[in-house]
Formats: sequence, structure tokens, C-alpha cells
Amino acid sequence: MEVSEFFLKLLVILLSAKLFAEIFSRLSIPSVLGEVVAGLIIGPSVLGFVSPEATLHLIAEIGILLLLFEVGLETDVGQLVKEGVRSTLVAVTGVAVPAALGFWVSYSWFGMSLIPSLFVGGTIVATSIGITVRVLKDLNRHNTRMARIVLGAAVLDDVIGVVVLAVLYDFAVKGTVSIPATMRILVFICAFLLLAPVLAKLFVPLMAKLASSGRTKGMLPTLIISLILGLAVISHKVGAPEILGSFAAGIALARRFFLPLRASIDHYSRQLAEKIEESMTPIIDLFVPVFFVMVGVSINLRAIDMSSASFWAFAGTLAAVAVVSKMVSGIWAQGGFREKLSTGIAMVPRGEVGLIFAEVGKRSRIFDDAAYAVVVFVVALTTLFAPLAMRLMMSKDKDGE
Amino acid sequence: MEVSEFFLKLLVILLSAKLFAEIFSRLSIPSVLGEVVAGLIIGPSVLGFVSPEATLHLIAEIGILLLLFEVGLETDVGQLVKEGVRSTLVAVTGVAVPAALGFWVSYSWFGMSLIPSLFVGGTIVATSIGITVRVLKDLNRHNTRMARIVLGAAVLDDVIGVVVLAVLYDFAVKGTVSIPATMRILVFICAFLLLAPVLAKLFVPLMAKLASSGRTKGMLPTLIISLILGLAVISHKVGAPEILGSFAAGIALARRFFLPLRASIDHYSRQLAEKIEESMTPIIDLFVPVFFVMVGVSINLRAIDMSSASFWAFAGTLAAVAVVSKMVSGIWAQGGFREKLSTGIAMVPRGEVGLIFAEVGKRSRIFDDAAYAVVVFVVALTTLFAPLAMRLMMSKDKDGE
Repeated sequence: MEVSEFFLKLLVILLSAKLFAEIFSRLSIPSVLGEVVAGLIIGPSVLGFVSPEATLHLIAEIGILLLLFEVGLETDVGQLVKEGVRSTLVAVTGVAVPAALGFWVSYSWFGMSLIPSLFVGGTIVATSIGITVRVLKDLNRHNTRMARIVLGAAVLDDVIGVVVLAVLYDFAVKGTVSIPATMRILVFICAFLLLAPVLAKLFVPLMAKLASSGRTKGMLPTLIISLILGLAVISHKVGAPEILGSFAAGIALARRFFLPLRASIDHYSRQLAEKIEESMTPIIDLFVPVFFVMVGVSINLRAIDMSSASFWAFAGTLAAVAVVSKMVSGIWAQGGFREKLSTGIAMVPRGEVGLIFAEVGKRSRIFDDAAYAVVVFVVALTTLFAPLAMRLMMSKDKDGE
Repeated sequence: MEVSEFFLKLLVILLSAKLFAEIFSRLSIPSVLGEVVAGLIIGPSVLGFVSPEATLHLIAEIGILLLLFEVGLETDVGQLVKEGVRSTLVAVTGVAVPAALGFWVSYSWFGMSLIPSLFVGGTIVATSIGITVRVLKDLNRHNTRMARIVLGAAVLDDVIGVVVLAVLYDFAVKGTVSIPATMRILVFICAFLLLAPVLAKLFVPLMAKLASSGRTKGMLPTLIISLILGLAVISHKVGAPEILGSFAAGIALARRFFLPLRASIDHYSRQLAEKIEESMTPIIDLFVPVFFVMVGVSINLRAIDMSSASFWAFAGTLAAVAVVSKMVSGIWAQGGFREKLSTGIAMVPRGEVGLIFAEVGKRSRIFDDAAYAVVVFVVALTTLFAPLAMRLMMSKDKDGE
């Protein structure tokens, strides 16, 4: 890609994201949906101006890292751990039910063979943590207990989604599944989840010192981004999704995570937390929308043969299965029906991981064009439907907790 | 490039840049040199960990755009225009003398044929505006009259360098030069230089309104970056270097450029200027070093056969010509010998444009490996030598004007 072509595409991405986010926001629709729609419009589905190129894709990945960092930064680990059991129940249910039903529908009703059916099940496993979290933030509900349960569940289910992808892919290629290898990955990931924030925490005093005594400009944002990138790389190495690393980085720098270690760093912890926010906010706000626009760009609605009855039969059934089966996970939420329903709906959006499943399935010829079109349609539908439903469930006037 | 590989490379670039910038800064060497050296070390010259890949190159290009934007933001257009005649004289001398001598040395002394000799002349034409400006900022001398003359001259000579490249390339391919086409480009560029800041200025009230009344996050940095990218794309379309567009964007948003239009926007101009600085600084500080690291990465010192006597003869001569011929341009500076010498030295660094010439020359087979090695060596030497010499000339204790 030529330099000025790259600049132009970036310009179109940034401006269309803001334009649609602003319009949607004024229509009381979560702005993240505007960004995905912007991507659908400028991408291959409508105008075809931006295609899912490598460089734009990589910049988008920085966006999702930064979003999860920001979420981590605002997360109260104590509260997250307190809801850990519920989150785990929601996550496990939200993985098992869609995977089983997705597989069963594809295999028994629509006569797909074994491995593609397993892949369809895999595609509808993982909640899009990005979409969910952004909608909760857009609706200013990210500090509720429900949000914490959903966040914990979405993180766990992202981890499970990536492991399931690795296992299924191995199974598709080799025909066997190595249980010890899978267990090892899970142990590594758990160890990483527990250790990363603590290790990152040890880095904080050094960072504070360098940022205050360094003579070069921009020390603080650079060190923070380095921490995010470093943990993302390690996270990938242990077999977990990269965003787990940036989430851990956010937790480590969260104001609430500072407090237990008051003695050593209390003096500038508040000041440091403010500086972190001040210098990271513009960078986060710039990159995050690129990710959601690229989600829209990655969905090619033209790949779908809208005139095919068999497409609509399969896609309709699978979409219903994807929505309903995920909503089942809400039964573990504390509270009444409304609370359980909100939690269930918040788990519905698929996105990144679903699209990755679809892409891997297509590239490795596990999915034919028809199957690919169906799963892309289902991912698109849940991505677009869930934010609207969440908006309806959680009217802004009703307060948080 | 895989996502986690990209993250790792970005991490190494950011951390090595800060490490060397900090070390150099503490040794009282301009920190930009540390960033270039970091690039030399992690790049193909030493470790070979980072190569000049497309994505990293594109991100680096955002860095140089943002640097020129920042420079524009801090520029007093009135003062720049006031020094316009001197700047033009410096620029023209700094183009003509190196081009003529570079060509002559290659053609007459070292027996190169016509077109490669012209390309050698072209390679040593353009001052690296990036290096020069960063050194002046590192030394805190960017608000002196000398700095304004050098800035104006470097901008002009970058424009000339790009036009010369286009003309020479055409000549190499077609064997003729179209004078009318060249004149048209020059007219377009001049029109752009005059109109862009004024047009961008008209955009400011709209931007201020959107930033204050918009409901989506990060409106201001996104709109500013959009303005920068938009003007960069237009600048490229009229045949000028992209950085001219971002420089114009900076000038349009400069506090000093606000003042003449006081009536309409005075109320929040100061506040807006502060907000612009606040939200852009972290982004600028993050991206700019990537550019200079990638300059170091783009220079492959291993391409040079250090044992060849003919290499040293040609490279030594051309380096001397490149340095001395550029320093001649300093005679137009106002003041005594010291002032003229400082100005001349500040014009010495080649960088981006020189490397582009070298790459174009190599790719189009105008340069053989030996000639390519010579010009890369000369660019590297002037890039590394000039900041040190500038540092020696302008000791920090001596004050600005």
C-alpha cells in the first residue's frame, strides 16, 4: 500500500467512525454500533473502499488491546474476583450450550459433516468482549455488578474460545486431540492470569521513576504501551488471546489495585493514576474506533447469497440458536428475571473470535462458501442485534447498581 | 506479519528508542540521534531483528507527519514569512551547490554515467527536515531566528527535492524532461502552500464546535488527525511531499495564527489551543520516535563493503562534498561567521528524502550495489554527524535569539 493511500484509508476510517458514532449516539443507539456500521459501509459490503488489509488490521489490533487496557484500568479486581464464581458459571454455560446446539443443528438438521459442524459450534462460542464492553461503557453501565459478571465471563469465554479454536484446528488437521497439551495450555493461561497483574505491578514504581526523572518526552505513554504490548506478547506465547495481556496491564495500573501496596507508592499513586489517564485517553480514543470499523470491514455481506432459501433456513435457525443459547447463560446472574435477561443479552454479541473462526474455517477449506456465508451472517446479526437489545433493556434513566 | 510478532517489533522499537534517547540525552547528545542509533542496532545493520517492513514503515510515516504538525503548531507564520527571502536563498543554494558538485564528482572523477551521476546529485540535495527540526527542539533552540530560517529553507528544499526526484526519474525512464509539467507541479505546490493553512483555518470553528458539543469520545484528537491526514493526501496529490500538508495543518491550528481572526473565535481560542496541545502531545510523543528508529532501520550498513578502497575513495569524497556544499548555504544567514556556520551545519543532515532517492535508484537499477552503498553511507554519515556538530555549535547555556 502506498503511503498516501494508507493515509487516505485511515482518514476515511477515522471520520466515518466518528460520523456514525455521533449519529447513532444522538439516536440513543450505542455508538459502537455506528462504528461497525461505518465499517460495513466503507468496506466490501457496500462501497468497497477499504478492504481488510494487513496494516489496517494490525492497527485495529492495537485498538482492541487499548480498549481492554482501559477496561482493566477501570476494573476493581476485588469486585471481579468476588463475582468470580458467577462469572465462571456464566462463561461455561455460555460456551457449552451454544457449542453443543450449534454443532447439533448443523450436524443433524442441516446434514453438515463432523468437522465443519464442530467449527460452526466453535464460531458461536465466544462473546465479543469488545462489543459487550463498549456497549456497557456507551450506556454508562460499566460499573454495575452485572457489568462485572459479564466482563469476567466474557474474558473467560474469550480464553475458552481461543483454546477451542486451537483444539478444533488440531483435530481438523491431525484427526486427534491431545488432552495433555490442552491441559497444559489451560494451566499456562491460569498461571498467566494470576501472575501477570502482580508482575506488572512490580514494574509500576520503576515506571513512575522513569516517567518523573526521564529527560526524554513521552516517557509515560511509551512505557505504558510497552507494558501493554509486552504482556500481550507473553499472553500469546502461553496460548491465550493477546487482549488478556492488555487487560492484565490495565488491572495492574488500576487505581484500586494500587491501594493494597500503599506503603511504598502511596505518595504519587493518585498523581500517577491521573497522569496515566491523561496521557492514555487521547491514544485510546484514537485507536479503539479503528478496531470496530475494521470489524465491520471484515464482514462481507456480499458473500451472502440472499436469494437462496437454504441459506435463510440455515442462517435463520443458527442465528436463533446463537442468540437463545447464549442468553441461557444469564440464569446465573443474581437478581430477578430482568437482571438475568440483561446478563444473557450482554453475552450475545459475537465478533472478533467468531470472525477468526470463520476465516480459519474458510482458509483451511473446512467451510465452503455457503457455510462461510452463514456464519458471517450470524456473527453480523448478533453484533448488530445485541447492542440494540442491550440499549432497550438498560434505559439510561435507570441507575447503576 | 502475525499480530503478536507485530506487537513484539513495535515494543522493541518503542523501548529501544526511549532507552537510547535517554542515554544520549544524558550524554548531552541530541536524543534524536539515540533513536536513529536504536534503529541501526535493532535493524539489519546489527541485530537484524526489525526490517523495514511495510506496516512499520507506514506507522513511521504517521510519526513524521505528526512531527511536522507539531513544528507547524509552534511556528509563528509571520516570522517565517519575514525570513522568507533568506530561507529561499538558503534553500536554493543548499539545493544547487550539492546537486552540481555531487553530479560533477560522480561524473568526472569517478566515471559514473550520466543518469546515475544525476541521481547521486539528487540524493544529497534534500536536508532532512525531520532530523534538523528534532535537533533544534532537543537543543531547545527551535524558537530562534536561525531556526526559523533553517525551518523555512528545509521545507522549501524538501519540496524541491521531491520535484527533482520526480523530474530525474522521468528523465531516467523517458529520456526527456517536460518543463511545462514540472512548472505545473511547482505552481500547484505554491498554491497549496498558500491556500492550505487558510482553508484549514476555516475548518477550525467547525472542529471546535464538534469537539465541544459532540457526544462521542475523542472527537478533538480524531478531527485533528483527520485534518492532518487530509492535507497530507491533498499535498501528495498536487505533487508535494505529504509532510507539507501536516505542516500546513499545524500552522492553521497554531495559537499565533488564531489571533488575526480574533473577532470570531477569540472566546475559546486559547482554551482550544490548550486542549489541542493536551490531546495531541501523547499521540505525537508516541509516534515520532518510531519514524527516527525506522530511519536507522532503513540504513543497512552491512550493504557496505568496508574493505573496498574504491568505496572509501568515492564515499569519503562524496561525504565531504555533501557536508561542505550544504554548509555553503549558510552564507545567507544574518549575523557573524558563527551564525552562518550554525545555519550551514543545521542544513547538513540528509535522511528521508536521501534514502528515498537511494531506494528508487536501487529498485530502478540506476544504482548498482556499489553506488547504493556509497549514497547510503553518505546519508548515514550526515545524519549522524550533523546533530553532533549542531550540539557543539549551540551549547545549551547560550541563549536563544
